[in-house]
Parts: sequence; structure tokens; C-alpha cells
Amino acid sequence: MPGRILSNELNAHVDQTVTLCGWIHRSRNLGVLTFVILRDRQGMAQLVCNQSTVYNNESVIAATGQVVANPKAPGGFELQVAQLKLLSSPTAGDLPLTIHGDPASVGLNALLANRYLSLRYPAIREIFIVQAVVLKYFAQYMRNRGFVEIKSSKIIGSGTEGGTGLFTLDYFGEPAFLAQSPQFYKQAMVASGLERVFEIGAAYRAEKHDTPRHLNEYVSLDVEIGFIEGEEELMDLEIGILNAICRGLRQECSTILERRHIVLPTEQELHAIPRLSYQEALEIIERQVHSAALEINPEGERLLSQWAAEKHGIEALFVHSFPRKKRPFYTAFEGRRTRSFDCIFRGLEITTGGMRIHHYDTLLAALSKFNMQEKDVADYLTIFKYGCPPHGGFAIGLERLTQKLLNLTNIKEATLFPRDRNRLRP
Amino acid sequence: MPGRILSNELNAHVDQTVTLCGWIHRSRNLGVLTFVILRDRQGMAQLVCNQSTVYNNESVIAATGQVVANPKAPGGFELQVAQLKLLSSPTAGDLPLTIHGDPASVGLNALLANRYLSLRYPAIREIFIVQAVVLKYFAQYMRNRGFVEIKSSKIIGSGTEGGTGLFTLDYFGEPAFLAQSPQFYKQAMVASGLERVFEIGAAYRAEKHDTPRHLNEYVSLDVEIGFIEGEEELMDLEIGILNAICRGLRQECSTILERRHIVLPTEQELHAIPRLSYQEALEIIERQVHSAALEINPEGERLLSQWAAEKHGIEALFVHSFPRKKRPFYTAFEGRRTRSFDCIFRGLEITTGGMRIHHYDTLLAALSKFNMQEKDVADYLTIFKYGCPPHGGFAIGLERLTQKLLNLTNIKEATLFPRDRNRLRP
Repeated sequence: MPGRILSNELNAHVDQTVTLCGWIHRSRNLGVLTFVILRDRQGMAQLVCNQSTVYNNESVIAATGQVVANPKAPGGFELQVAQLKLLSSPTAGDLPLTIHGDPASVGLNALLANRYLSLRYPAIREIFIVQAVVLKYFAQYMRNRGFVEIKSSKIIGSGTEGGTGLFTLDYFGEPAFLAQSPQFYKQAMVASGLERVFEIGAAYRAEKHDTPRHLNEYVSLDVEIGFIEGEEELMDLEIGILNAICRGLRQECSTILERRHIVLPTEQELHAIPRLSYQEALEIIERQVHSAALEINPEGERLLSQWAAEKHGIEALFVHSFPRKKRPFYTAFEGRRTRSFDCIFRGLEITTGGMRIHHYDTLLAALSKFNMQEKDVADYLTIFKYGCPPHGGFAIGLERLTQKLLNLTNIKEATLFPRDRNRLRP
Repeated sequence: MPGRILSNELNAHVDQTVTLCGWIHRSRNLGVLTFVILRDRQGMAQLVCNQSTVYNNESVIAATGQVVANPKAPGGFELQVAQLKLLSSPTAGDLPLTIHGDPASVGLNALLANRYLSLRYPAIREIFIVQAVVLKYFAQYMRNRGFVEIKSSKIIGSGTEGGTGLFTLDYFGEPAFLAQSPQFYKQAMVASGLERVFEIGAAYRAEKHDTPRHLNEYVSLDVEIGFIEGEEELMDLEIGILNAICRGLRQECSTILERRHIVLPTEQELHAIPRLSYQEALEIIERQVHSAALEINPEGERLLSQWAAEKHGIEALFVHSFPRKKRPFYTAFEGRRTRSFDCIFRGLEITTGGMRIHHYDTLLAALSKFNMQEKDVADYLTIFKYGCPPHGGFAIGLERLTQKLLNLTNIKEATLFPRDRNRLRP
């Protein structure tokens, strides 16, 4: 739009004639004058219109006029409107949600059912501005360390990677599946000679849960790296990633973080994240609950995070040395313990990773231990027939990370259009 | 790996003891000595081993020794190996492909059937290094102009966006579909107040073609922007994107481009891309083929590109003002001509875009003209019930763009794991 400036640029245009474009957030009629709060992608600005009525809330307008200083206006400046142009008018009588109200007063189900409208709440929209910054700094950090971004297929011909459910689809009359992860592909790309790869892509779990921590479709931040010696290097790498993201958010989203009272971990705190064996983690849980712990369940993840906050000053920990039966067949191991780890952040597992078996014979033996057949993973096995370096990797759930960075109650709040047991739209 | 350096770093370590890790590309036995060409992610290096035999080709090794200058060695330096460690051995007797050979001598079908191995050819792997750089500069350019990256669901509950085929899947007993594009979601995000969004995500077409220009799963670089006045601004934006990508590639991939004899368009050339109406484009084709042209088919795209190269010095053009029946129902129009465009680059359509209808009533009328029902697109229609700015956007096919930037014959060469009519694996 010619002459358009944004709401946060008024101060640079005092006494000039400019145009603001955006949505009518709300308006207040004072007889011959109407005060309009206009909302655009940078925030809000006050318009003063010489007319007794203006358009409905959520109308899209272009307002041209002179910028004047007014200490009482939000931001200290307002636009004295000479010309008001309607670009688009809401046609629904009453909107199902009041965007100038407080989204906290609306239930999550109503927010998700009216997603195209609820994303207009600035407090909701900004979650996805934060998420975009997470994506930016994840990719930037990986690239700076020589990782190559890959894009692997999500439609796959056979699905035997792990124990979780698969969505099936009809591929020209043949059955196909949606990938749970790019696990096999990212390992193949390490072995192809790229050595270091990352992928930002969708992952699918056909599991019938409906919890505040699960999605049936989510974005996985996948990392895989060759020529490393052990899982300690992977945990170091994850700390580097988390630090880059937190630093990036402090830099680009400080206003959002302050408004939400979010304090992100410092570099020093991230480096203090404790690393416990699975057995040690169970013992800590047992000491808290005064009974035997057989696994690390969601309550256990919360207790462990609390313990880490008290003992190490950061509500996060790595758990390593999981028993083999708790991890996929391809996980590297020493005796009965795998060389794998989880990262639990603010009470929620955000990452699973580990070293992978890279010798063909070891992998064959692992298959039979897991009651799997060679033919189930025939393509995958070829990676190891051709010479494959020692390697490992991990995946961070984008929505879980966003949820925890912003202290959101439910993972669906961190997902534009969540897919769950009952939600296929919008 | 401790003390590891990369093959292109030998020159900085003369007379030092270092370790190189990688794959045995080939070896040459000279009696008491063996020369090994080691391949790592940065290239090749020569190893001199005091032994008459070494491991098979494609074995993964760590070689420790002293760096010495040798003008006859590739790069001018070599490693005098004191210790050679085998990290992983190929188990297959004869590999189906010879990685130190020329992939051009192998047919595309064999390359794709043996994808986990064929990606080891440096000339094939580097295609995906280029693709990663395309992704980087696309995202960077968008972010620098205030666009927010979004991630929308690919599983959708109803699929009525356009005329192309949809893959159907079983979503907990209900039918669902794989999205052809994030079209509705990106429009919703503009209307949510983000105003400017981009998405890098998978797109699905259940079309039974098997051509050098089609994939059933591909990566779409999607852009949508509000508060613009017309499609000219969209074409300007695309030129900016293409320029940022070409500049980035010249900066980061100059060796690859030179080795492949690729010359990318300059900024000046990109700004000279002609913009023709659909009618003008048909007339140019007709003058070449001396008969009536009823549409712009693949041969037409080639002829038009050739024409643009001759007349405007760049093998690319925009075609705008398509008739309404050739574009989706949501396309903005004036009379019988839509405000939409394609970008044809080096003989191939790489982009479709345009202004969108942003008035609810106009959209309702368009639905009936396209024999569609309100209930088919009920969620989508709500976007326009709540006040929506004028907006438009486009999508660039990542694989098509990569293909054309590198002058590849077939789009599958620009896809790690292509999905086509007959290809579901690896």
C-alpha cells in the first residue's frame, strides 16, 4: 500500500501524512470523534476519526492522516485521520470470539475450534512468532557447524522403525505409510558422505492418546552426525542448540518474553544440565515417591526436573544408559545398557537420541533380538553393507520445545492447526 | 574423532600429525606402498600407506600420520600414514555401483533404486548441498523482509482446494487427505495478523504421471503477503527471492557451479525477466509452431523460455492474466482475466501464484461458478467472514528450482528419495 507505515513507526513520522493499515481492534465513540485502536503486524496504534461511527471491530482498513504526538495515546503518538478506507468488512454478525478481550478467558477447545479467529489474539499469535525464531536459530546453528539441511520423503513404503502406530494411506492402490521420523534417511545421509545433516519436517504418530503433551502430527527437528565417539558429544551438541535458540529469542523476542514473564535459561545454566543414568534417575524418583519406580513416566519427568532445578539450578536433565528393551533396535549398546539419552526440559521429554549401531553384523543380531526380520528393513540394512561411520543423532520436538520455552499448559497451544484423536480440522 | 581434520585442511597442518576420517574412494597398490584416495565431506585427500594391501573400497577408516607436501598429490599435500584404523567395512562383495566411477554412465533408474549408495557419488551428493543452500537463502530473504515462518498440518480433513488428485489416509477410522499445498492455511495466517508468512513444507499430488517434471511428493516454498495492491508486487518479490538464492549459491557453492559449468542469472538479468499476458504468450508460441496454441504445454514453456532468452537475455518469463477457468476458484480476477501468474524458468514452470479474492461475497459467487458448495470449504470461508486484507502469494517448487538451477534433466535427480507412480522406496 502506497505510503503505508507500521504502527510502531509513528514516532519517526511526526507531522507527516502517512497511511496505517490493519484491523479495527476496538473503537470508542465520543460523540463527534471516534477513537480507533488499529492492530497491525507490529502492534497497535490510536486513530482519531472525525466521525461519530466507524466500521465494526475486525474490519480491515487503511487510514491516512497526520501523525501527532499525544502523551495519552498508546506509544505517545496517534494518527489524525483525514481519509478512512474500508478494505474488508466482517460479514458475520457477532464474532464467536472477542479479539480485544483476554484469550485466557476462552477455553482451549473453543480457541482451537475457532482457530482462524483465535490466532488473531496478539497473545496467541506471538507464540508462533517465537516458534519461527526457534526454527531460525536451530537451522542457523546447525549450518554454522557444517550440517547440511535435508528433506526426506514422508510417504514411505514400509514402516517398521519402531513400536508406535503408523498412519496408512492408499498409494495408487498400494499400502503406504506416513513416516514416524526421518531416522533411516538421516542415517543414510550421514553414510552417503554428508556426515552431518539436519532436517525440519513433519513426523506422524497414529497413537490414540489425547493428552497435553502429544500430537498425531508434529514438527521434528532432526540431527544426525558421523565420526563421533559417543553420546556425550550429542548432549553437548544439544546444549549448543538450546543455547543458540535461547540467545536468539532474547535478542528477537524480548518484548514478548517480558510481557509473558518468561525467563530463558542462560548459557551457564544450560551447561549445568546434569547427566544421569537411567538407574540413577529411577532412584531419584523413588526417593521422592517412597516407592519403586519401574519407568520414567510423565510424573517422573516432573519430579526429575524439580530435582535438577533444586540441585543444579536448571529445570532440565539428560537421562542416559536406558536399557535396550526401552529403545529401538538400532540403538548402540554396551552390555545391557544403550548409548542413548533423553533430554527432559521443564518437566517434559523434548528429545530422544543416541548413538546408532553402525556395523552390519551387530545390526543383524539386534534385529533377531527384537523379533524383526531382515526383509522388514532390507533397504535400511544396505546402508551398513556399504561402509558406515560411527554416528548418532537426536530429534527435538518443535512444539514441545515451544511449549516449554513459553511455559504453555498444552502442546496444542504451540501448534497452529493441531491434529489429535478428534481433531482433523480446521 | 580426536585430532581429526578434513581433507581440505591438510595445507594448514604440514609436518603435523593429524587424523583424516572418511571412505576409501579408491586405492592403488605399488608393491610395498599403497596410495589411497580418502573421501570425506570436504573432498578427497591422498594417503600413503606402508603396506601392500589396504581395505576394500568404501571401507570407512581413520588414518593418522604426518602431513607432507607433495606437488603430485591432489591438492598438493598428502598424509604419510602411521596408523590406519578400520571403522566399518562394506560387507557386500561387489557393490552395485562404483563410486569412484562416473555416475553419468549409470542409468537414472539404477541410481534411484540404489539411492543409499548412489548418493555417495560426489557429483550426485553435491546436488543436495546446493539444495540446502537454496533453502537457506530463501528463508533468510523472507525473514529479512518481515515474513514469519509457519508450519501447517499436512493431514487435512477435507480436500477441495483444486482439481488435482489427493492421497487419502485412514485417520482413526475417518478418511483424511494429504494437503496439496498450505494454500488455505497461509491465507488464514495473513488474515490472522501475521500479514507476511512463508512455509517450507511437503506437498502431495496423487497424479498418475511419470514425467521428468513431476513428483507425487515435493517440497513447496510457499509465500503469502497481505496489504499489497497487485500481482506485480508478487513478481517483484519472486525476483528478489531468486536473486538472493543465486547470489547465495555463487557465494557458497562456487566450486560446485564451476565444476558443473553452471552460470546463474545475474541480478540485472533477473530484473529483465519479461512479463507477458497469457494471450501474448500464446501468440508467441503460435508464431513459432505456425498453428493455433490452446494452452501453454511443456513444449510451449520451452519455446517461451527460448524466446525470452533471445529477446530479453534471460531464459525466464512471467505469464500473467490467465483465464479464470485455468486457475483455482479463489483467484482474484478482473472480468474474464485472473490476477495470477506463472514463472517459467529455463523451460519449466517453477511457480504459480497470484492475488486472492479477499471479499466473502465475491468468494461465494466464485464457488458457484466453479460448481463448488459452501460446505466443501466451510472453514476456509470463515477467514473472509472476519475481515481479511487484500493479499496474494505464490509457491516455488524446491526440486524444480534445484533442477533448473543445475540444468538437470529429470526432477528426480533433485530429490533425495523421489516418490512417483512406481517408486515408494527406498
